[in-house]
Amino acid sequence: MNTVLFRDSQVRVMENTVTNAEKYFGQFCSLLAAYTRKTARLRDKADQLVKQLIDFANTENPEMRVTLRNLAEDLAKVQDYRQAQVERLETKVVNPLKLYGTQIKQTRAEIKKFKHVRNNEIKQLEKLEKLRQKSPSDRQMISQAETSVQRASVDASHTTHQLEETVDAFQKQKLKDLQKIFSDFVTIEMVFHTKAVEVYSSAFQALDNYDLERDVEDFRAKMRGVCGHYNAQPLTDTTLSAAVPWSLPAQRDRSIIRSQRREEEASKDHPAEEDPVDDLKGLGWDSINRMKAPHMEK
Amino acid sequence: MNTVLFRDSQVRVMENTVTNAEKYFGQFCSLLAAYTRKTARLRDKADQLVKQLIDFANTENPEMRVTLRNLAEDLAKVQDYRQAQVERLETKVVNPLKLYGTQIKQTRAEIKKFKHVRNNEIKQLEKLEKLRQKSPSDRQMISQAETSVQRASVDASHTTHQLEETVDAFQKQKLKDLQKIFSDFVTIEMVFHTKAVEVYSSAFQALDNYDLERDVEDFRAKMRGVCGHYNAQPLTDTTLSAAVPWSLPAQRDRSIIRSQRREEEASKDHPAEEDPVDDLKGLGWDSINRMKAPHMEK
Repeated sequence: MNTVLFRDSQVRVMENTVTNAEKYFGQFCSLLAAYTRKTARLRDKADQLVKQLIDFANTENPEMRVTLRNLAEDLAKVQDYRQAQVERLETKVVNPLKLYGTQIKQTRAEIKKFKHVRNNEIKQLEKLEKLRQKSPSDRQMISQAETSVQRASVDASHTTHQLEETVDAFQKQKLKDLQKIFSDFVTIEMVFHTKAVEVYSSAFQALDNYDLERDVEDFRAKMRGVCGHYNAQPLTDTTLSAAVPWSLPAQRDRSIIRSQRREEEASKDHPAEEDPVDDLKGLGWDSINRMKAPHMEK
Repeated sequence: MNTVLFRDSQVRVMENTVTNAEKYFGQFCSLLAAYTRKTARLRDKADQLVKQLIDFANTENPEMRVTLRNLAEDLAKVQDYRQAQVERLETKVVNPLKLYGTQIKQTRAEIKKFKHVRNNEIKQLEKLEKLRQKSPSDRQMISQAETSVQRASVDASHTTHQLEETVDAFQKQKLKDLQKIFSDFVTIEMVFHTKAVEVYSSAFQALDNYDLERDVEDFRAKMRGVCGHYNAQPLTDTTLSAAVPWSLPAQRDRSIIRSQRREEEASKDHPAEEDPVDDLKGLGWDSINRMKAPHMEK
């Protein structure tokens, strides 16, 4: 009877292994899928922030405009990296966990087959026991039953061996995959955070370089500029009510001065004033396309 | 009439400044509040993952158990940093943006006051114009009206000056705050991502150190251990059906062998087998408290 009991406890070890894998891999899969979705939502919010920063930049003087655009550009870059993070999490973490269902089903089928064979062994043993009690003198029947028990036992031992191999392979693969999936998860996160540190470091520098005093001077000049402008060329009521962008002349003048003072920055300032398409200049194409297309979100 | 026109266009510059600030600061406030909430939700998902990792670790052999616990610990640390990030975003980014409402209201009130004074100036001018057309010879009335215009003009010029100062101060403060708020945002993000890189680097190392072969050997030994156990002490059916943890004896034996082989790791393996409270051993108190308390989420 020891063999049967051993097989009972051994199958329990195997069943536990498969049951735990099924339970926890399922949970990991849905948790990591949710984690990926929440990351995608964070990316969407940051994308909206990028858009608002660009819109707002266009209402500001050149100094703040350049600063906000640089910030928007850097923030968009981080979202491009986040998008890559989302795609990698899906491919290398969530999908492999999903595929586990099939492997678990196969192993479950092996265990079911084993249980069937084992039940047959127990049935034959019980039959033999009954015969020995009911007709202990019927040597032929007992011998027949003993042969059946032996056959069932050989079957069970064979199936046990098969099952052992299956569960062994399953366990080895499971451990390997666990290490691989979580290493991939950690690597994907690590790459994203490293890139984010890089981009935010440069964003911090750009914000730090912002010249508040120059911007305030620009604002004051604009107020005076409006004054000087109207004093030089008195306007009729009609001209005043026309929808001319109020700050354009003053800005053009100033951006010419700026281009003389800081040649390297002039190329950034000029086109944006004339062409609204250039609002997204300098942003990665990825983030522009993402802004246009609705995001995949399950 | 030039002065009046100038004031009209100047007030439009000022109104635009305040209107844009109101519009965009409001949008930045709600977008960044949403960004903070989404970050908090990401933290919550990761906290759930930490819990599941610990639960699953307890069903695994020592090798994988230690590996998964270390991973859970590192993941919990990242969430502690994310919690700090959420709190800092609220204090240093969202709240200052919220406070802008008050400042904008005050500046709006100044502009309203100015418009009232300016309208009076226009009214006095119109009155004088009418008088000049209707009774051009009534020197006394015209002189009186001229005095009124002058007084209204002085008033308007005084209020304009006040308004200019208010808007100047408002603009300067706004630009300063913009730089401060976004610098804080970038710093908070940068600190979080830097910490995350640190923690994930160590998590990657821990996963890399995982010994698959030893774990597979452990699993096989457990199967054989169950076998040897039942062979040495044949059990009755009653003992078998009792709810004794199936793997405990084999695990104990192995953990003793392990403690001889790897003294330094033994302390990690032992208590967890006896005391489920130790599941959270090594995790920061922050993350434990966060797991117990429901998260603040608006």
